[in-house]
Amino acid sequence: MSIAVSLPAEDKTEWWCQMLRDLMPDWDIYPMSKVPDPEKVTYSVVWRPTTGAMTPFKNLKAIVSLGAGIDHVLADKELPEDVPIIRTVGTDLTQRMKEYVALHVLRHHRELPAIQANQNRQAWEQIIVPPATGRRVGVMGLGNLGAAAAELLTQIGFQVAGWSRAPKDIPGVQCYAGAEGFGAFLEGTEILVCLLPLTENTRGILNADTFNRLKRGASVINAARGPHLVDSDLIEALNSGQIGGATLDVFHVEPLPAAHPFWTHPKVTVTPHVASLIDAPTGSKIVAKNIRTFQETGSVPDLADAKRGY
Amino acid sequence: MSIAVSLPAEDKTEWWCQMLRDLMPDWDIYPMSKVPDPEKVTYSVVWRPTTGAMTPFKNLKAIVSLGAGIDHVLADKELPEDVPIIRTVGTDLTQRMKEYVALHVLRHHRELPAIQANQNRQAWEQIIVPPATGRRVGVMGLGNLGAAAAELLTQIGFQVAGWSRAPKDIPGVQCYAGAEGFGAFLEGTEILVCLLPLTENTRGILNADTFNRLKRGASVINAARGPHLVDSDLIEALNSGQIGGATLDVFHVEPLPAAHPFWTHPKVTVTPHVASLIDAPTGSKIVAKNIRTFQETGSVPDLADAKRGY
Repeated sequence: MSIAVSLPAEDKTEWWCQMLRDLMPDWDIYPMSKVPDPEKVTYSVVWRPTTGAMTPFKNLKAIVSLGAGIDHVLADKELPEDVPIIRTVGTDLTQRMKEYVALHVLRHHRELPAIQANQNRQAWEQIIVPPATGRRVGVMGLGNLGAAAAELLTQIGFQVAGWSRAPKDIPGVQCYAGAEGFGAFLEGTEILVCLLPLTENTRGILNADTFNRLKRGASVINAARGPHLVDSDLIEALNSGQIGGATLDVFHVEPLPAAHPFWTHPKVTVTPHVASLIDAPTGSKIVAKNIRTFQETGSVPDLADAKRGY
Repeated sequence: MSIAVSLPAEDKTEWWCQMLRDLMPDWDIYPMSKVPDPEKVTYSVVWRPTTGAMTPFKNLKAIVSLGAGIDHVLADKELPEDVPIIRTVGTDLTQRMKEYVALHVLRHHRELPAIQANQNRQAWEQIIVPPATGRRVGVMGLGNLGAAAAELLTQIGFQVAGWSRAPKDIPGVQCYAGAEGFGAFLEGTEILVCLLPLTENTRGILNADTFNRLKRGASVINAARGPHLVDSDLIEALNSGQIGGATLDVFHVEPLPAAHPFWTHPKVTVTPHVASLIDAPTGSKIVAKNIRTFQETGSVPDLADAKRGY
C-alpha cells in the first residue's frame, strides 16, 4: 500500500513526500522515480507527470492531480486507462485566484500601467476612469475558481458577465453558456478574464475572433492555461490597439522562453504562474483527506471527468 | 441669489459652472473671479480656494467643499467665520476610493513590484506569498471612505484592523480608537492604509515612530493628504528596509515637484491624486441637492465640523 509522488522539481517532490508522510504514517510514500515495488502503488500524486511513468502501477486506484485542472495529467498519452483522477481544490487555491483576478482587473481598470509609465517620465497627468460600476468584466469559466472570482468582482462593484459550457446561476453575475451565448457574453466586455479548464473545446479560445468582439482597447487576463491563448493573435491585437493590455500567468511553454516576445512587449505583464498554487503544507492536508475518503468510499466530491476533460 | 465657483484650473471651474447651471436654472452661477455683485453670493462651491477670495461675500450661507475633506477650505486663513461647510460625498467618491485601496493593497500583498522587476530582467522566479487570510491590513480613518475600503478588504479575505479618533463598529473589522489604541492597531500590520482627515492631530502621523511599530518590510499607502506623511521619515524607512514599499497619491505640494525624490525612488509608486475624485457630471448633482436641502432646511447630513477639522 504505497503512494508515488511526482512533480517536475525534485526538491518539491521531496517536500510533498515529507508532508504526506507526516499526515499518513500508515502509508509508504516515495518519489515516483524511487518506488521499490510498482505493483504496491495504489495512488499517485502528480503535477505534470512524465509520459509513461505510471504505466508500471498495475494496481493504481486513483491519480491525484495537484491542481484544479487535469489537463497536465491527460497530457500523458500513456496514462493508465480508466483510472479515476482526483482534483485538488482547496480554500487557499480559490482565495489566491480571487486575489490575482481582483488585482489584475483593478490594475487594468484603473490604468495603472499608464500611470506608472507617467511616473517613469515624472509626468503628473491625471487619468480619469469611470467607476467600476460603469465597467463590464467578463469571466470565462465558472467552476470553483471562476465563480469565486466573479463574485468578488461584483463586490468590488464591477458589472460582471460569466460564460461557461453548461448554464450556471451566480448572484449578481449575468451568466451566458455554450457557443450560442459566447457572442453576447463578449459584446461590450472591457476586461476579459480566462479561468477555463483546458479541453479540446477551449484550446485557442483566446484568438483574433474573440478579441475582435470585445470593446476596442479591452484588456485580457489569462490565469488558466497557456494553450487557451493564440500568442500571435494577441500580439497582433495589442499592436493594432484592439487589445489595450494583457496580463498573462500561463504560457505554452513554462518557464516562458527567454526569446518569447511577451517578456518585453510594453503592453504585456508576465507573472510566472503564481496566480494560484497549492503549497505542500496546506495542499497535503487536502490530498491526504481525499485519498482516505476515496479509499473508504470509492469516490470524492472533486473527482474529475476525464472524457469531459476537467 | 447667486453661487460662486472656484477650482484651481479655470477650465474645470467653467465645467462645474456649466453643469450646475443645467441643474439649477433659477440660480446665477459664476466663476468666483467673475462675480458681478459679491453681496448677492449666498453659496460658494470650492476646491482649494484662493486665500481671501470669499471675504467680499457678506451674505454667504454655506461653503460647499468639492471633496470629503475640508482642510483645503480651512487653509484659507481669511475664510469668513462661522459659515457652515458642506462636504461633498457621493457613491462615486466612495466607490473610487474602495477600488484604489483594494488595488494597491493587493499589489503590495502579492509583491507585484518585485514580479514586474523580474519581468524587466526576464527572470522566471515564483514568489510565494501567504493568502490574504494570513495578512493583516490596517486602515487609518473610518469615515465614509475608510469604512467602505475596510469592508471591501474583508470581502477580499484580509485580516482588517481599523483605527479612528472615536470608537467605531464595522462588521469583520477589528476596530481601535484614539491615542491609547494606536500601538495595538499598528502591531503586526503588514500593509498600512491612511484615509484620515487632515487635522492638527493627524498631521505628520505617518512618521518614523509609526513605521517602526509595523511589521518589518510593511507597505504604506497614503490616499488621504500629503501632510499626513513625514516624507524624509518614509525615505529613511524605505532605505533601511523597515518599510518595504509605498504607494502615494497625495503630496505636500501638488503636482509633486520634479526634483522630489519620490518620483524616482525604486520602492515608491506615485499616482497623481487620482485615488478618488468627484467629476462634474455626477458631483454637480450632489452639490445641487445639498444646496437645495440647505436652503430649505438650514442643514444637510454631510455638514462638516470646522472646529474638529472634518
